[in-house]
Amino acid sequence: MTIETTAPTDTKIVLGSNQYGKAEVRLVKITRDTPRHQIQDLNVTSQLHGDFTAAHIDGDNSHVVATDTQKNTVYGLARNGVGTVEEFLLQLGEHFTGSFDWVTGGRWAAQQFFWDRINDHDHAFSQNKSEVRTAVLEIGDDGKKSIVAGLEDLTVLKSTGSEFHGFPVDKYTVLKETTDRILATDVTARWRYTDQGLEAGIDFDGVYASVRNLLLTRFASTHSYALQQSMFQMGKAVLEAHPEIAEIRMSLPNKHHFLVDLDAFGQDNPNEVFFAADRPYGLIEATITREETESNHPIWSNIPAFA
Amino acid sequence: MTIETTAPTDTKIVLGSNQYGKAEVRLVKITRDTPRHQIQDLNVTSQLHGDFTAAHIDGDNSHVVATDTQKNTVYGLARNGVGTVEEFLLQLGEHFTGSFDWVTGGRWAAQQFFWDRINDHDHAFSQNKSEVRTAVLEIGDDGKKSIVAGLEDLTVLKSTGSEFHGFPVDKYTVLKETTDRILATDVTARWRYTDQGLEAGIDFDGVYASVRNLLLTRFASTHSYALQQSMFQMGKAVLEAHPEIAEIRMSLPNKHHFLVDLDAFGQDNPNEVFFAADRPYGLIEATITREETESNHPIWSNIPAFA
Amino acid sequence: MTIETTAPTDTKIVLGSNQYGKAEVRLVKITRDTPRHQIQDLNVTSQLHGDFTAAHIDGDNSHVVATDTQKNTVYGLARNGVGTVEEFLLQLGEHFTGSFDWVTGGRWAAQQFFWDRINDHDHAFSQNKSEVRTAVLEIGDDGKKSIVAGLEDLTVLKSTGSEFHGFPVDKYTVLKETTDRILATDVTARWRYTDQGLEAGIDFDGVYASVRNLLLTRFASTHSYALQQSMFQMGKAVLEAHPEIAEIRMSLPNKHHFLVDLDAFGQDNPNEVFFAADRPYGLIEATITREETESNHPIWSNIPAFA
Amino acid sequence: MTIETTAPTDTKIVLGSNQYGKAEVRLVKITRDTPRHQIQDLNVTSQLHGDFTAAHIDGDNSHVVATDTQKNTVYGLARNGVGTVEEFLLQLGEHFTGSFDWVTGGRWAAQQFFWDRINDHDHAFSQNKSEVRTAVLEIGDDGKKSIVAGLEDLTVLKSTGSEFHGFPVDKYTVLKETTDRILATDVTARWRYTDQGLEAGIDFDGVYASVRNLLLTRFASTHSYALQQSMFQMGKAVLEAHPEIAEIRMSLPNKHHFLVDLDAFGQDNPNEVFFAADRPYGLIEATITREETESNHPIWSNIPAFA
Repeated sequence: MTIETTAPTDTKIVLGSNQYGKAEVRLVKITRDTPRHQIQDLNVTSQLHGDFTAAHIDGDNSHVVATDTQKNTVYGLARNGVGTVEEFLLQLGEHFTGSFDWVTGGRWAAQQFFWDRINDHDHAFSQNKSEVRTAVLEIGDDGKKSIVAGLEDLTVLKSTGSEFHGFPVDKYTVLKETTDRILATDVTARWRYTDQGLEAGIDFDGVYASVRNLLLTRFASTHSYALQQSMFQMGKAVLEAHPEIAEIRMSLPNKHHFLVDLDAFGQDNPNEVFFAADRPYGLIEATITREETESNHPIWSNIPAFA
Repeated sequence: MTIETTAPTDTKIVLGSNQYGKAEVRLVKITRDTPRHQIQDLNVTSQLHGDFTAAHIDGDNSHVVATDTQKNTVYGLARNGVGTVEEFLLQLGEHFTGSFDWVTGGRWAAQQFFWDRINDHDHAFSQNKSEVRTAVLEIGDDGKKSIVAGLEDLTVLKSTGSEFHGFPVDKYTVLKETTDRILATDVTARWRYTDQGLEAGIDFDGVYASVRNLLLTRFASTHSYALQQSMFQMGKAVLEAHPEIAEIRMSLPNKHHFLVDLDAFGQDNPNEVFFAADRPYGLIEATITREETESNHPIWSNIPAFA
Repeated sequence: MTIETTAPTDTKIVLGSNQYGKAEVRLVKITRDTPRHQIQDLNVTSQLHGDFTAAHIDGDNSHVVATDTQKNTVYGLARNGVGTVEEFLLQLGEHFTGSFDWVTGGRWAAQQFFWDRINDHDHAFSQNKSEVRTAVLEIGDDGKKSIVAGLEDLTVLKSTGSEFHGFPVDKYTVLKETTDRILATDVTARWRYTDQGLEAGIDFDGVYASVRNLLLTRFASTHSYALQQSMFQMGKAVLEAHPEIAEIRMSLPNKHHFLVDLDAFGQDNPNEVFFAADRPYGLIEATITREETESNHPIWSNIPAFA
Repeated sequence: MTIETTAPTDTKIVLGSNQYGKAEVRLVKITRDTPRHQIQDLNVTSQLHGDFTAAHIDGDNSHVVATDTQKNTVYGLARNGVGTVEEFLLQLGEHFTGSFDWVTGGRWAAQQFFWDRINDHDHAFSQNKSEVRTAVLEIGDDGKKSIVAGLEDLTVLKSTGSEFHGFPVDKYTVLKETTDRILATDVTARWRYTDQGLEAGIDFDGVYASVRNLLLTRFASTHSYALQQSMFQMGKAVLEAHPEIAEIRMSLPNKHHFLVDLDAFGQDNPNEVFFAADRPYGLIEATITREETESNHPIWSNIPAFA
């Protein structure tokens, strides 16, 4: 999509890739068919791809489905039921690409927040903030749908069973080797479903619960020699259990817990008292994938790099 | 505490109330006497009261226990065990008032973050972010100790069982009456223990768990005609169950969930689809207390008003 | 204000101090009498005091001026002009206490955000985020009005001209004395106007500009032996210049800039390379006041303690 | 870079793209060759690319330049002078790729915070928070260096001179057309320098100041029919003036300022009183580029999509 315009240099200045829409539409859907209510709590973003050059070049909005309209569509479609977050994004994507000729694709994303019942009450809930579930649907200009599911802000810690040694030493290296440290991180994980999986149909909620559990249990059970190693084991467990997942990306801050030096106060500190630091932090990121998976699927160009 | 200085007007400019210290000391304490580790995760603030006028007026630091020293003391005392957060603040307060003649009192506060075991693992944890526990100890210049315990960021919601009507109508009133709305809030609650209770000894962890449970269950069980009414019922339940609590203050944002008007889209909306708004929000604050409790205990002058 | 209720203990559980209203009403007012527009950007909170016991005890809302109505009133009154932020709060306070018999007082507060013109353009602006202006009006149950003006988030730094030594040494003291350190803080200052000043009339914008300038220039010009000393000098300068100010409270984090130890890398570091730390931080707070000023004016019970 | 491992399915699970390092190293550099100090305030992230498979698969850290070492290197190199933020990232990148055989490339990024002198003082500063400057250097596995410079959090507003009409209408469209609205956004802009520009040498500070000015002035001077149009004009102005810039990406939230309906209160509202909303917001993103510029330069795969 390139539109010519004049420029004082010899080059033509053109519109490149672009998208627009409404971000962070806060939707709470109560299902109240019975006295035992269900709650779904989403933060939805809708962005359209297609022929929007006239708006950019000429201020001609005849193709610009208003972002307010996109917001209203989120609420209108939700009235008929949300389903899983991925299913809801598919509803949105199919609506927009099916309703407007010039909308050839787009990007629809959501965060999902969790609620627990208070004492198994029918309609009273407390928010469970342990993590946020995420999902992104991208419909390419060829109509192909790709989905990346994920989670973020899942904070985990091991109080032992983590070592770090054997690293190279140069003039700037003063870090001491350790065979026992705290390992802590906020897990951000995003996994892409295979085309075959999407065609066959995926139990999105079931896979989510399974991946979450695998990440937690593999983090716990891995005796760690590097956060890189724990991360790879976590991702490998997910891919082994879920053939419908093509690849998984993780972005893991190494949340440093520094052992406090109590010597000066006449005290020992056998890995008991730690200072939990804010910044800087390590940042460990990788894709764990399958040998046959393409290495740069287009959807990743529009999901924040790693994290 | 008033120190004279010259001023071009007739009045003397003096130092009034003051305090200083180290804020947000992030302490993680691992108890590892057995392979089944315990974790305590605190954010501690220490502030001293006393004779610090020379530092302010003359830059004479001979009384200024360095804030770095206060931080170190947090870690040094933690080495010997933390106990409940209130007990740890008492250790800190007694240390500083007992170690330096001119430190006559102070304010020690903490946030406590919670962790759950991952699959009952001995040393792997995931953070439970449902709420943050808080505590403030104040030692007055007369040596008297007061403690306010609390919690914050406990988010709750009722999807029905909440009405709001009968309010006065003036020219600026356009709000419609409702007999069925979503009621949602982030609970901030702070309760002050009685002097008698502190003398007799308090099971701080046990009371915390009980108060938390009472706030949740009373929020759930109250058919609400106003958030004010729910709040009062929640506080009343706490005071009824806990004679060792003199008063409780709550600050409750009314987190508006607006019913989306779907009429224009040809849809009804029988309390199913809501927009969760950010700002503005209602803000409902009160003290629930006992008839014989003094109405302005000094500790409240140094805890953020209501919230 | 105490309302009786039954309790299983011998004590009566009653409603204590309380307030409610709408928080964070985001108001942008454009004055466009001429092509050269003016912009006022406020974040307004309105909270009412008075007889609201029936709402708390019985869920009777006949006295509950809806928080939605309070929000609407902010916008309705703004239509007739905002003036200074303090004058706008006075309009709000007088409206509510004058319109509803049972509203005996309240608390009205605002943040003000600043905008600069882009190249002196008539109607294009860029936000100046250097600081946020604040104001709080409290009308007591006796009808007396008190105003605290202020600023927050004004970040300042001296790269030399700051020392810290002569502090007491105990077993937890490892901090080294220094005659040259970076001194940095985020200034939060709040000053209360005298009753006489309010009666005589105050140039709120003019005093704000003057106080801001005094805080900055005195921070810069004071050779500092302790942040306490700089703070006192800053407050003293304000009180000396402004007889209409009764007292000023400041809350100053000591934003530590630690000299990085480059010895291990074979480099010196003559106060050139610093690590700017996040947490913990020093926290230095004081009231600078006049000898004849009452030490605990009631308005401070409802403004966050120091900060 | 693919490493085989066994999996219960037929596919081999391998390590894909990865990077690791230290994030958010807070560096404050004071240049004090003369009494008139200079301050540079950066937040630096260093991430390495290369052969790190053994760490992931086997927990073998012999190639893992510790993130602590990377942090130390930031401080060590800063001792010799920082220069522009881009020059400092180049120093870092050349150091790591030149020092370790297996480090074939990486990503180095920084935020820069600005300070103004207080009254032209030699060593006292106040922070100018109007925007944050950003820069990213990527060294590819082929050794090629690419640089994206940028800014974020530059908040601008036009109080008139903005229209929005002519958009398509469907069943979900209720937005009214307007010929006069507030247009406000937080500018995030990132521009990539051409290879020829980098080879010839770029005045990074000069170009930054020019681009910032062009973005502001073109935002102000464009009579806007859509935020898309303003964005394109802003980007076009930058490319026209700067042949050393290959392309520019912008991510602009449409920060809605809704005209408050005062009719019910008996008042008109001729574009004077607005509610500044938080969420949802429009989100308008595009690349403005040159006809001959490649459309998916690899550096964009590791910079957050648009924003």
